[in-house]
Amino acid sequence: MIQVAIMGHGVVGSGVAEIITTHKKKLFASLGEEIYIKKILDLREFPDSPLSDRFTKDFNDILNDAEIRVVAEVMGGTNPAYDYTKQLLKAGKSVVTSNKELVAAKGAELIEIAKNNNANFLFEASVGGGIPILRPLFQCLVANNVKEIAGILNGTTNFILSKMINDGMDFDTALKLAQDLGFAERNPEADVEGHDACRKICILASLAYGKHIYPDNIHTEGITNISLKDVEYASQYKSVIKLIGDVKLLENGKIDIFVSPMLIGKKSQLANIRDEFNGIVVRGDCTDDVLFYGKGAGSLPTASAVVADVIDSCMHLKERKYLYWADSNNESVLPYNESRTRMYLRVDTPNALDKINELFGEVYVVASDDELAIATDLMTISQIESNIEKLEQDGVKVLSKIRISDL
Amino acid sequence: MIQVAIMGHGVVGSGVAEIITTHKKKLFASLGEEIYIKKILDLREFPDSPLSDRFTKDFNDILNDAEIRVVAEVMGGTNPAYDYTKQLLKAGKSVVTSNKELVAAKGAELIEIAKNNNANFLFEASVGGGIPILRPLFQCLVANNVKEIAGILNGTTNFILSKMINDGMDFDTALKLAQDLGFAERNPEADVEGHDACRKICILASLAYGKHIYPDNIHTEGITNISLKDVEYASQYKSVIKLIGDVKLLENGKIDIFVSPMLIGKKSQLANIRDEFNGIVVRGDCTDDVLFYGKGAGSLPTASAVVADVIDSCMHLKERKYLYWADSNNESVLPYNESRTRMYLRVDTPNALDKINELFGEVYVVASDDELAIATDLMTISQIESNIEKLEQDGVKVLSKIRISDL
Repeated sequence: MIQVAIMGHGVVGSGVAEIITTHKKKLFASLGEEIYIKKILDLREFPDSPLSDRFTKDFNDILNDAEIRVVAEVMGGTNPAYDYTKQLLKAGKSVVTSNKELVAAKGAELIEIAKNNNANFLFEASVGGGIPILRPLFQCLVANNVKEIAGILNGTTNFILSKMINDGMDFDTALKLAQDLGFAERNPEADVEGHDACRKICILASLAYGKHIYPDNIHTEGITNISLKDVEYASQYKSVIKLIGDVKLLENGKIDIFVSPMLIGKKSQLANIRDEFNGIVVRGDCTDDVLFYGKGAGSLPTASAVVADVIDSCMHLKERKYLYWADSNNESVLPYNESRTRMYLRVDTPNALDKINELFGEVYVVASDDELAIATDLMTISQIESNIEKLEQDGVKVLSKIRISDL
Repeated sequence: MIQVAIMGHGVVGSGVAEIITTHKKKLFASLGEEIYIKKILDLREFPDSPLSDRFTKDFNDILNDAEIRVVAEVMGGTNPAYDYTKQLLKAGKSVVTSNKELVAAKGAELIEIAKNNNANFLFEASVGGGIPILRPLFQCLVANNVKEIAGILNGTTNFILSKMINDGMDFDTALKLAQDLGFAERNPEADVEGHDACRKICILASLAYGKHIYPDNIHTEGITNISLKDVEYASQYKSVIKLIGDVKLLENGKIDIFVSPMLIGKKSQLANIRDEFNGIVVRGDCTDDVLFYGKGAGSLPTASAVVADVIDSCMHLKERKYLYWADSNNESVLPYNESRTRMYLRVDTPNALDKINELFGEVYVVASDDELAIATDLMTISQIESNIEKLEQDGVKVLSKIRISDL
């Protein structure tokens, strides 16, 4: 019997407790031992829980219990999760977490502490919820140089964009529906502004390229400015608009990473990822494109990934797993201005094409009615921005600009 | 430095040698040691290979070399691969393979031998080529009871069906094109008759349910009878025809497993798996549907999965991985006659609807022109077959019958 603890009894934490309780047979078959939940840390009371006798409000009950070997941290946020995780790892306990904020902010440090204390720090659930992605990336795809990872990493924004695309709902109405259905928080900023996706693409980038990429200063653009007009023009361009977290390794060794809405060709696998689902494409130099798809959030999907990490930690009590990346100061991240892309532009002046050609060279005209929508050739963000500035000096208002993906 | 050997220098084997040679840096970063190819077994001569000094025609050069710890078996077929693999495992060497025929026929026995000799027997590349699927299934999804696995597991047939669906090509023309492009063998039987897909769904089923499911006596239906008329009617039913390997665990503990063409709704993720690509849906009780997509064959994709297993074996030289299933005699496999499904039927008699209703009850009329196409309700294969027999006694010829998927 291996004794474990769970910190947090919210959406994910209660799912972890439920799976360990209801899937005893399946877990025993894999592990060959029983998993026993010894303690659950939460400040709230759960008198009706079948595990009500295991609850504690004192973190030290877990830290100081030598029998507890593995701890699932599912509290969310960095405080006190960071401090608790550090103390547990230093005590030689393995910690598994679904906490992307913690991993994105402190991953390198916690991995290093785990390594030094011969413990494991695993976080499959922090990206893609129940979708297997981190383990496939660092185990199954280990023989590939990863050229690019691009993903729909946030279910809330994908739900909203799907409603805009398929039902012609405007952003505000779709957001409200997402909130009513429980797919979006009352304060939706972390989702709709792209911060959640940014944490996830940073974790994927860190794992793929072996050094910690911090979310700070990574270009992060949300979907609040996407209009139904853009959705319609995108469709005329045989594309859909998706919020994409993207990272590529350039030939000069720089890492081009950003979160941004993008026009995705309708034949792309990513275009078919609908509603609250997530999808992640890994472009390996041997495998070409491999895609992982499923529910990126929710109690049981996410909890099942946490429990898989618990099992893996229980199997490696005496031996570390080889998940590793080094710390860095983001020095290899390409400044966003130097990122190259094709760009969709929508302007308020239908007859601005000559001016646009003058500045951007040949462009593809997506639509021309009371407004003008075009697609530029490949150029750097700084070239695009400087051209836009000149356009606006000439009285042409740029109503929207959206990157065009080549995936 | 860890010394390895490769048995077979064909499409996959040469890819394995190439990746280990060209991806030294990436592999070293993961493993922390260099991998050295000491021997390559092949009866042919490769004087121009940069590794020409490593070739041998004598299996004993590998078996008796105590320094060789891990062997990649990429010869294909069961003979002599089975005998060689057995001897290597008994000598305590780990074996990794892309050989689905070997794993489907002898997996349980070889896993047991590996276990008894504290060696590893890994075969990620045997299903889905470069797509990570086995490791995600037994590690990441370990906390799920797997309700169903359904996959497009054969790239050749998916390419042919895609040409029929998208370009209106008939089966023979599409097969010829596949052969010309190198997607199909000169003798395409193993692909087009479904045997290749059957081996793969059996491997997935064995892993998911912990007991060996042998391909013998599993209902296996290929795509040679699919006509353009069926493709057209399927489209009117908002579906596409795909060759699906499918396994479900029923509530009575029976395993319902088969390979068959199926009508898949166009909104299903599987419907969007085009051309030579593979896609596999795993329906977990916690995660719901998770999909894995990518190239299911080809030299470098498949070889990269073999190399990932080599790395994993190198990391577990002293310790077994926990991949395991027990032997069985297929006693838990549901007789195909008892399998329940909705069925698409095409008959030559447009006015046979009354008779059909009499036999099948209410049906959905897919098309009615010079022929009649209908979709039945859920019933067992034996009910459907007995009704078809009665129809034909009444002079109604059933031109095709295709299962309808609910995925």
